[in-house]
Amino acid sequence: MYSFKNDYAEGAHPDILQKLIATNLVQHDGYGEDEYSVEAKEVLRQKIQNPDAAIYFVSGGTQTNLIVISSLLRPHEAVISANTGHIYANEAGAIEATGHRVITVDTEDGKVAPAAIENILQAYLLRPHVVKPKLVYLSNSTEIGTIYKKSELEQLSAYCRSKDLYLFLDGARLGHALTAEGNDLTLSDVSRYTDVFYIGGTKNGALLGEAIVFGNSDLAKDLDYMLKQKGALLAKGRLLGIQFLELFKDDLYFSLAKHANKMAMKVARAIKKLGYDFLTEPVTNQIFPILPNDVVEKLAKRYAFYVWKTIDADLVAIRLITSWATDEDKVDAFIAELETASVPIKR
Amino acid sequence: MYSFKNDYAEGAHPDILQKLIATNLVQHDGYGEDEYSVEAKEVLRQKIQNPDAAIYFVSGGTQTNLIVISSLLRPHEAVISANTGHIYANEAGAIEATGHRVITVDTEDGKVAPAAIENILQAYLLRPHVVKPKLVYLSNSTEIGTIYKKSELEQLSAYCRSKDLYLFLDGARLGHALTAEGNDLTLSDVSRYTDVFYIGGTKNGALLGEAIVFGNSDLAKDLDYMLKQKGALLAKGRLLGIQFLELFKDDLYFSLAKHANKMAMKVARAIKKLGYDFLTEPVTNQIFPILPNDVVEKLAKRYAFYVWKTIDADLVAIRLITSWATDEDKVDAFIAELETASVPIKR
Amino acid sequence: MYSFKNDYAEGAHPDILQKLIATNLVQHDGYGEDEYSVEAKEVLRQKIQNPDAAIYFVSGGTQTNLIVISSLLRPHEAVISANTGHIYANEAGAIEATGHRVITVDTEDGKVAPAAIENILQAYLLRPHVVKPKLVYLSNSTEIGTIYKKSELEQLSAYCRSKDLYLFLDGARLGHALTAEGNDLTLSDVSRYTDVFYIGGTKNGALLGEAIVFGNSDLAKDLDYMLKQKGALLAKGRLLGIQFLELFKDDLYFSLAKHANKMAMKVARAIKKLGYDFLTEPVTNQIFPILPNDVVEKLAKRYAFYVWKTIDADLVAIRLITSWATDEDKVDAFIAELETASVPIKR
Amino acid sequence: MYSFKNDYAEGAHPDILQKLIATNLVQHDGYGEDEYSVEAKEVLRQKIQNPDAAIYFVSGGTQTNLIVISSLLRPHEAVISANTGHIYANEAGAIEATGHRVITVDTEDGKVAPAAIENILQAYLLRPHVVKPKLVYLSNSTEIGTIYKKSELEQLSAYCRSKDLYLFLDGARLGHALTAEGNDLTLSDVSRYTDVFYIGGTKNGALLGEAIVFGNSDLAKDLDYMLKQKGALLAKGRLLGIQFLELFKDDLYFSLAKHANKMAMKVARAIKKLGYDFLTEPVTNQIFPILPNDVVEKLAKRYAFYVWKTIDADLVAIRLITSWATDEDKVDAFIAELETASVPIKR
Repeated sequence: MYSFKNDYAEGAHPDILQKLIATNLVQHDGYGEDEYSVEAKEVLRQKIQNPDAAIYFVSGGTQTNLIVISSLLRPHEAVISANTGHIYANEAGAIEATGHRVITVDTEDGKVAPAAIENILQAYLLRPHVVKPKLVYLSNSTEIGTIYKKSELEQLSAYCRSKDLYLFLDGARLGHALTAEGNDLTLSDVSRYTDVFYIGGTKNGALLGEAIVFGNSDLAKDLDYMLKQKGALLAKGRLLGIQFLELFKDDLYFSLAKHANKMAMKVARAIKKLGYDFLTEPVTNQIFPILPNDVVEKLAKRYAFYVWKTIDADLVAIRLITSWATDEDKVDAFIAELETASVPIKR
Repeated sequence: MYSFKNDYAEGAHPDILQKLIATNLVQHDGYGEDEYSVEAKEVLRQKIQNPDAAIYFVSGGTQTNLIVISSLLRPHEAVISANTGHIYANEAGAIEATGHRVITVDTEDGKVAPAAIENILQAYLLRPHVVKPKLVYLSNSTEIGTIYKKSELEQLSAYCRSKDLYLFLDGARLGHALTAEGNDLTLSDVSRYTDVFYIGGTKNGALLGEAIVFGNSDLAKDLDYMLKQKGALLAKGRLLGIQFLELFKDDLYFSLAKHANKMAMKVARAIKKLGYDFLTEPVTNQIFPILPNDVVEKLAKRYAFYVWKTIDADLVAIRLITSWATDEDKVDAFIAELETASVPIKR
Repeated sequence: MYSFKNDYAEGAHPDILQKLIATNLVQHDGYGEDEYSVEAKEVLRQKIQNPDAAIYFVSGGTQTNLIVISSLLRPHEAVISANTGHIYANEAGAIEATGHRVITVDTEDGKVAPAAIENILQAYLLRPHVVKPKLVYLSNSTEIGTIYKKSELEQLSAYCRSKDLYLFLDGARLGHALTAEGNDLTLSDVSRYTDVFYIGGTKNGALLGEAIVFGNSDLAKDLDYMLKQKGALLAKGRLLGIQFLELFKDDLYFSLAKHANKMAMKVARAIKKLGYDFLTEPVTNQIFPILPNDVVEKLAKRYAFYVWKTIDADLVAIRLITSWATDEDKVDAFIAELETASVPIKR
Repeated sequence: MYSFKNDYAEGAHPDILQKLIATNLVQHDGYGEDEYSVEAKEVLRQKIQNPDAAIYFVSGGTQTNLIVISSLLRPHEAVISANTGHIYANEAGAIEATGHRVITVDTEDGKVAPAAIENILQAYLLRPHVVKPKLVYLSNSTEIGTIYKKSELEQLSAYCRSKDLYLFLDGARLGHALTAEGNDLTLSDVSRYTDVFYIGGTKNGALLGEAIVFGNSDLAKDLDYMLKQKGALLAKGRLLGIQFLELFKDDLYFSLAKHANKMAMKVARAIKKLGYDFLTEPVTNQIFPILPNDVVEKLAKRYAFYVWKTIDADLVAIRLITSWATDEDKVDAFIAELETASVPIKR
């Protein structure tokens, strides 16, 4: 069996493990005060071209989301998210557990647009009987594999600033977004257009770890306290610093993401060639082809993946995810198997 | 400079890193469903001689404390802790942030006794105007290096059960406690006498990781949801499973702790021989000698440690911590330096 | 101007004020231990034919909802409500502020049905990445004036019990529901079919006050602590006890609600006669006629009411609310004005 | 039996009840938008000589405390209070339930002094492992009957401002403080020296109700949302507005408090004359005489009061509370009984 279930089925990129070994017995201060963390932050500040950015490393995405959001909001303030947003669909109520409603907007493509936010603001006017929408949460790439164009993020940013809303971008798969075909955003753009975002390490080659970036460090006031309070301050913070240093000092992060995307696109092209459709246009390492039940059954014998959605009596959408570790031979074998299993469909 | 500031200044025991490398590219399910985690839990259940224990791996101690406590308590219930307890003194209000008061008892030795709990219960009788004490939090070894004897834990356990109080033991340094001179507790005893406890990996050879153990799995009902909600469920849960498997399959965990204790005792004996006192009797890897200011100043030139408490105009207590990674040569050099710096004190 | 905006525009029924005066200088214990509260609870237990019910008086509906729900749920558990439910639409995130998601179901009539709950349960299967639905919240009468039939509540009750879900009924306007045309529920039925419900005083003749009723007192364990913690335990609890005693000792509560319904039905019949439609079939003291803009404009000169929803370019739905204090002369005048303003519509 | 147990054993001052009756059927907007509330706020702004003050009426003290504190603090911030402070000793963990630690200072007289705050700040320096003290909570009069002098409040205010700490004064018994012998504070002083305070109605003649006053309305930003979210926004807000208007338009509030104090002082003088001591010097309507057990037993046959503290084998301190409603004849009878029961003590 080979798994296309997710992008965290393997460990870490070997360079990271080597670096952990090389530095293992050097003594360092704890809680993120080690020199690797300090240096990794400096490297990231250069990448985003913002020497004043406030940067923090934490162990996972849910932790990041709940800390960032609860640190920015007052008790009566709420978050706006796509209904597919990770904070709404996959985090066991982490945001509500900090006291804040997540208001969702229905989307086809997993993306939030100014018009949808405007509808929410209009629906929440009856002060003080309603919550006050105050933060917009985005994911890039989204939970269904799509990406934001520069113009879209720019418009969202301008809209949010005009309405005094914070804009927070979840970058669990930011590497995949920024190296996708059709992407025109840079890491620096992401920083400039948002109030805060994070760069996901876990799903792109690290053992664990996400980097939270506040372009405006005023918004990060006292965040260290909140990291500690929520259990996010690792005693051996070096573990996160070393990994991000390794990922970013020579742009390993981006080459890993490119590989994942390349593998996904190879599969996607083969699927298209066979005449199948997709739930969303494939551009990153998560693709959602719609396949006949019998084809899916055959594939499932040798490959692991999620069945995402029943389309009709004959068809289902499945989710295939590739990663920095995906073996091209396995991809080729999967394609061959798919071709064998398929009776090409007339479109 | 050599550091005796804490037991998390280095990385992980080399065997752990080797195991991470050896398993790195094997694909596994995420979120703790990997086979290493499953096997590590089985090994731990055998160690504590309780096949029904519910076990969970998380990344750090504050996270463990806040999840365990908030999962067990209803909104009006409170925790009793020593005033030196980590949850009160060192976790940025993590417990209160989940809605619960931490009621402290003053102690000299960092330990909680039934009489102190009884006093609290008597002070919290004016229902419903007060909170309801419901959980007793202990650390073993304590934050000031002391340990519980079997008879003490047995009495606490009986007392708590008689008063319908949960007993939760923070084992961030449980290895050091259970391998200390004078210890008469086993891991199995700890499980039997408490409702829930955790085994600390971070301070005893792991990169990160703590194992939460509920002897009675009924108390752990739905804990998986709470792990996810608080951001404690690592996507690459294998990272924790592999480490605990390596630490416990051949009792590496205990030999590492023994080394740390041995190094601390070597220093402690030398200090005693020089006629100095201690804040608390040294038995584990944290010792608190009381030294003259000038001696401390000389030592501070080559060794890092915390100045813990001013005793009087001439004397301060310092905290020295050793670990699995402490180099005996450095310990010997420290002792030599101390002897040179000291004018032996008549007692 | 005469107001049909809500059912809390006036003070309290005069009998209540007289009783407050008559008892004013009698000394009583505070915090609900007064004899009026004790007696009022006894009267209510008789009305619901359940001598073991646990009953508490608090000052308002939002307070009731947040206390009941947060007392019953563990941190990862969630509530299911109609999207029109007061806890979702009108309470400024009170439930989320206690840490729990409110999952909504879209409804036309403001009512929750087993099939809708089933859909939610199916959508929340991906444990532990999702919250766990655990409590169903209903209002009777609903926020849009509709009521539950006995068979509906019976089915909901059976469904919830089969799925281990709590059933909580918000009775802010329970009097209006139980005295509506077509109602076949009794107070005792409401208690039997739910786990907990409340009887609203504020909107039916009291100055303030709601009675929380747990048919099974086990579920109310330690609720007194939670009332105090959330600021709901009035020092002069007599104020609530006296009012509920007065409302229930001779069924004043029901006669007040009947008057409100009667006034609303009189208006509704006149509106129907003029050929207008309603958003929901009028049965209680909240009615939602759909009227031409120009008619609404004319009425608005002498009567206050909410414009509820734009239907099309010509029509809007308005909300008219009557109460125990509604003056029949004003109702007649309103009807006359409406008839004058209207050009009867052919249907 | 006559009760000296508390100052909320009776209903409301008769003028208030009359006003409720007189206004009962006038229709008003709900949720504090009624004209009585608007006018009462205006009267209070004049009394404190601050036309910009933001004022809110809520139903009780615990509610006030939890709303004010949770609206001002971020998640990692904590409160400093006397150990006798109502928020610590009597509110069932209401503040912790909103996520914030209450740090206590031990006091003999129930008052917080700058030196005690300074000690706390010094003990909470180890950022980010500790909470951040951010708000100082005082009561005036205190829970043990003492009052702040103008110079004390002035110094506290200057100290708090120099340390960027909020100063919040709980005025559940502010009337009694401001009319006590030896008081030199005015309502306007209280507003000027604090960031926010409240004026207690419940314990001084109202059925229920407290007025929250923010001298600087910027600090009250969005407080209306938080009132609603915590269940503190009464639908019939008129009930609070009418009462505060009645209490303050002709200074009834102060004359009621004076009566309560006068009655307490009459008792206190008699007790002193008999040679007994007090736990704290009696100046307001709460006094704590230390009496022989047998005297207490005799008094307890006809009078209700709390036994506060055992002093030694022979003596106990009791708490006697008088109120606006205390009958001077009963006071005289109590004194006579006490004289009869006492064997005068040589001091």
